[in-house]
Amino acid sequence: MSLNDTEISSVRYKGDHLLLLDQQQLPEHTVYLNVTTISHVWDAIAKLNVRGAPAIGIAAAFGLVLWAKQYKSSDLSSFHAELKEQHDYLASSRPTAVNLFWAIRRVLEAAKKADSVEHAVSLIESEALLIQKEDEETCRRIGEHALSLLQNGDALMTICNAGGIATARYGTALAPFYIAKEKGWELSVYANETRPVLQGSRLTAWELQANGIDVTLITDNMAAHTLKTKNIAAVIVGCDRVAANGDTANKIGTFGLALQAKALGIPFYVASPLSTVDLATETGDDIPIEERPAEEVTHIGGKRIAPEGIKVFNPAFDVTPAQYISAIVTEKGIVKGDYKNQLPKLFEEETR
Amino acid sequence: MSLNDTEISSVRYKGDHLLLLDQQQLPEHTVYLNVTTISHVWDAIAKLNVRGAPAIGIAAAFGLVLWAKQYKSSDLSSFHAELKEQHDYLASSRPTAVNLFWAIRRVLEAAKKADSVEHAVSLIESEALLIQKEDEETCRRIGEHALSLLQNGDALMTICNAGGIATARYGTALAPFYIAKEKGWELSVYANETRPVLQGSRLTAWELQANGIDVTLITDNMAAHTLKTKNIAAVIVGCDRVAANGDTANKIGTFGLALQAKALGIPFYVASPLSTVDLATETGDDIPIEERPAEEVTHIGGKRIAPEGIKVFNPAFDVTPAQYISAIVTEKGIVKGDYKNQLPKLFEEETR
Repeated sequence: MSLNDTEISSVRYKGDHLLLLDQQQLPEHTVYLNVTTISHVWDAIAKLNVRGAPAIGIAAAFGLVLWAKQYKSSDLSSFHAELKEQHDYLASSRPTAVNLFWAIRRVLEAAKKADSVEHAVSLIESEALLIQKEDEETCRRIGEHALSLLQNGDALMTICNAGGIATARYGTALAPFYIAKEKGWELSVYANETRPVLQGSRLTAWELQANGIDVTLITDNMAAHTLKTKNIAAVIVGCDRVAANGDTANKIGTFGLALQAKALGIPFYVASPLSTVDLATETGDDIPIEERPAEEVTHIGGKRIAPEGIKVFNPAFDVTPAQYISAIVTEKGIVKGDYKNQLPKLFEEETR
Repeated sequence: MSLNDTEISSVRYKGDHLLLLDQQQLPEHTVYLNVTTISHVWDAIAKLNVRGAPAIGIAAAFGLVLWAKQYKSSDLSSFHAELKEQHDYLASSRPTAVNLFWAIRRVLEAAKKADSVEHAVSLIESEALLIQKEDEETCRRIGEHALSLLQNGDALMTICNAGGIATARYGTALAPFYIAKEKGWELSVYANETRPVLQGSRLTAWELQANGIDVTLITDNMAAHTLKTKNIAAVIVGCDRVAANGDTANKIGTFGLALQAKALGIPFYVASPLSTVDLATETGDDIPIEERPAEEVTHIGGKRIAPEGIKVFNPAFDVTPAQYISAIVTEKGIVKGDYKNQLPKLFEEETR
């Protein structure tokens, strides 16, 4: 099923411009930024109008396309030199975004095969479109695999936003809901609001509601009562990094959800593209946990909700040990337990 | 140690007026309402300026004192008739507050022994002071018993506000922190903010900070990561009702905390005055769970944080099954396991 103009998409390429969904204005306003220059793309990434690792990478790749299409000279070696400069410029928009570096590197490499500027522009455009298409395909496959663990009518629970607006389409943890809808299945989902930044209420609830999927919002501390009383079939979450042993770093609150699901006998699934599995990271203990400013906890929308001068602990992520994860769902298939031996096999198949 | 004028107290009786801490203005403003009439007490209860079951009961009892002291006639039978009217009037301020009914009933009964209006006024004042003193003593004993489970230097975790401002003094779950401070111990505590109404950040963090106790604020979904990484010695919570088998209803999120503590091998304690243990309720399944308006979840301080029209599930309480409770701490001592047989024994001792 192809994306039509009424569907929500974080990055939409229109030949001479991009339409970027401004995630900063959600859920109040659904605004697409009309982006015509690479510097505008840089801004949109730096100011978090675009978020979600794959969506950032895709936006950046198309940023290079916009620049290339506006290139005036036919000198190929100058083109390559300037392309590298633009690449470095975009890389500075979000200095910790691995997916961003990966995407614009791919574009840079693709251009190297060109025998003219015109050819280079064409190769760059093709590569950006390919990156977007591959991400959509990855998400679609994750959704299909995840669906094989579920049944029509199931109610699920999720946290944060591992959704369509963070990727080319479908998302990772949210992919099964979209694929289910295409199949005519009815899945419903309880979305944890995900304090402090509220990606669950602002983004996941918005995205699923906008796409006609049955979503109910709860606060994070309602999870246990909801899991116990609402017949939840499974918890499904995205991830920021999966270690070689299956330990998974994801948005703060994920670990608590996993403990609660385990205690209540409910399966806990991690949706992860292979690009997020880092075999070089042995265990979750090797994943550093970013701590963020106190204001995220003490203020909401500029309003103070806690006493002045209060001490705050604000870890942005936590690590869920593999023992609490019932399955990791990738685009290459599902791994259940024995992650240390099974995860590398998915990569082996890829390089065959 | 007696309460001095600089200490925080929700209800302070001053002979011809009350000073009521306005909990609605916390944590931004620390304001004591100067209350001189029973109708002002009615307002303060109805508008939630005073909250916490014991604090409401105490405020109401003093409301009758203010009325009695302003009584102009010396006709004792008219006095009794009008006292009953004022009792019924105060009872209407918060129609579900069992502790309120209990306190003003005690005042009504005390006045019956009077042989003059002057005597009745004196008996009423004494009874109100006694209710306040008994509640302080109950909380103090809960704190002392709880402390016997802890060690100097321990870090704990709590949720909601079972604090001094909800009672005459000390609180229930927060009592050990105050008693520890009197003893020269150093306890620290992580306060869960307690969405949706934020009693943890607005009240508990404020109250402990104001009393010089080492408190750190976290969002509710940070509990598991904090329990695992911050060497938490125990979780301690208050309660709204304890069933005969030990199942405990408390603020939403308590059940999830208990599951997480259990999974991580951390003791989970419930602080409960005997007045909150309801032997007539067999198990937690018999406790109805109030669901509250969606706006509590979708808005904070009047600001919308979720999409319009989103479906919301907003249970105000949850039930923690007894199997997850390491101990219930009452003013009469500590019960660990076998709640069904041990809880009634505490009451037997009381009636001896």
